[in-house]
Amino acid sequence: MRNIRMAISYDGTTYHGFQTQPIGNTVQDVLEHAIGVLTGEKADITASGRTDAGVHARRQYFNFYTSSPIPVDRWALALNSRLPDDIVVLQADEMPSQFHSSYSAKRKTYRYGIDTSKFGDVFERKYRLHYPMPLLLEEMKEAIAHVRGTHDFSSFASKRSTKTTHVRTILDARIEASDGKLDIFITGNGFLYNMVRIIVGTLLWVGEGKLTAADFKRILEARERSAAGPTAMAHGLMLWEVEYEE
Amino acid sequence: MRNIRMAISYDGTTYHGFQTQPIGNTVQDVLEHAIGVLTGEKADITASGRTDAGVHARRQYFNFYTSSPIPVDRWALALNSRLPDDIVVLQADEMPSQFHSSYSAKRKTYRYGIDTSKFGDVFERKYRLHYPMPLLLEEMKEAIAHVRGTHDFSSFASKRSTKTTHVRTILDARIEASDGKLDIFITGNGFLYNMVRIIVGTLLWVGEGKLTAADFKRILEARERSAAGPTAMAHGLMLWEVEYEE
Repeated sequence: MRNIRMAISYDGTTYHGFQTQPIGNTVQDVLEHAIGVLTGEKADITASGRTDAGVHARRQYFNFYTSSPIPVDRWALALNSRLPDDIVVLQADEMPSQFHSSYSAKRKTYRYGIDTSKFGDVFERKYRLHYPMPLLLEEMKEAIAHVRGTHDFSSFASKRSTKTTHVRTILDARIEASDGKLDIFITGNGFLYNMVRIIVGTLLWVGEGKLTAADFKRILEARERSAAGPTAMAHGLMLWEVEYEE
Repeated sequence: MRNIRMAISYDGTTYHGFQTQPIGNTVQDVLEHAIGVLTGEKADITASGRTDAGVHARRQYFNFYTSSPIPVDRWALALNSRLPDDIVVLQADEMPSQFHSSYSAKRKTYRYGIDTSKFGDVFERKYRLHYPMPLLLEEMKEAIAHVRGTHDFSSFASKRSTKTTHVRTILDARIEASDGKLDIFITGNGFLYNMVRIIVGTLLWVGEGKLTAADFKRILEARERSAAGPTAMAHGLMLWEVEYEE
């Protein structure tokens, strides 16, 4: 069996998330159906991780095993002609048999996009949270610096998290600001359920002056979800990049 | 009566253009309905110009007369709460009674967006023409320079144009290229029906090497629609800015 890895991009607006759900209409369902039609085999894909309903991916990866002889450079075009226009295959590679999209991933980066303009940019309305408030950018930058490093992120994990440990390492966390837009980038070796969205929800309280950067640090150290701010809306979140050792 | 001018932004994807049509579902219909609900008066708006079905506006202007006493700084918020999320009022101003959104406009700029990446940026798919071809950028730049100045643009006007003269003045025309994207900006004192889209369709033939920049110049001079290339698709076109004398 060949082990095929694909890089994809998707607009999550109309999907119930990446992973197959009883309710249907997930990115995984659509991809597995298209691969099945192309290969004549039942496809069973494994992604680098799930994304929630409404969350987007600039670059997500998945892999699957197949007996199909289709050359690797033909997969993207062949699948794109069978996919809806909100899911795009960017690249396909044949990997060693032990490659696993999730376990082999070294680092992931998420971007959370915020539009602080008064009435919102109509062309980015599905990809950024509209938050028309003056925000204290320097205080937010000071706060986000506290998430860098290895910490127990229980304060920033959904109560529905089932992980045995909430310790994760954040390699980079930064805010880029330009002309009514904020981009919050967080890179780590792994993320807890809703972690980026809760960090952003809490950072927005810092931005509004409801919390200080020192409060943010105390919230992280409290290891208690109830200490933190709200979960920011899904549509501002985008899986930006997944890095593998080549 | 007060003369209110508004700046708006809209995603034209789902509309049958700006101007009211028998078929319905136009940007004008939606705006006039929302203004009517707000003021209790039948609204009759005049735009800087129509945009075709599927064409977007980053910044379009319209004006209308009203007896409503609503302060000018309240209009945008009041209307935005009554408008669908693909139409956004950016600003409202009270103008002298003789101000007219179309006749008072000095210059208009359109942008035509092209995505030359292999499989297309999923997040810009509704705002850029996906044209995954290697394009001869320098030849295109040489060609577009020929439209600057005052010319008879009959070669770049739809056969359905009903204007008595096809002479227009193009003040600026340029191409900006970055990372798989091309932005073609054209600024003029007025445009003929489909003019920007036909110029772009012809420029793309230059980009592909089907025509040279010298051919493009000969096409302009031919004053005959059949000499030019195809009309580029609507969704890449965006009314970028309208300038008035203040």
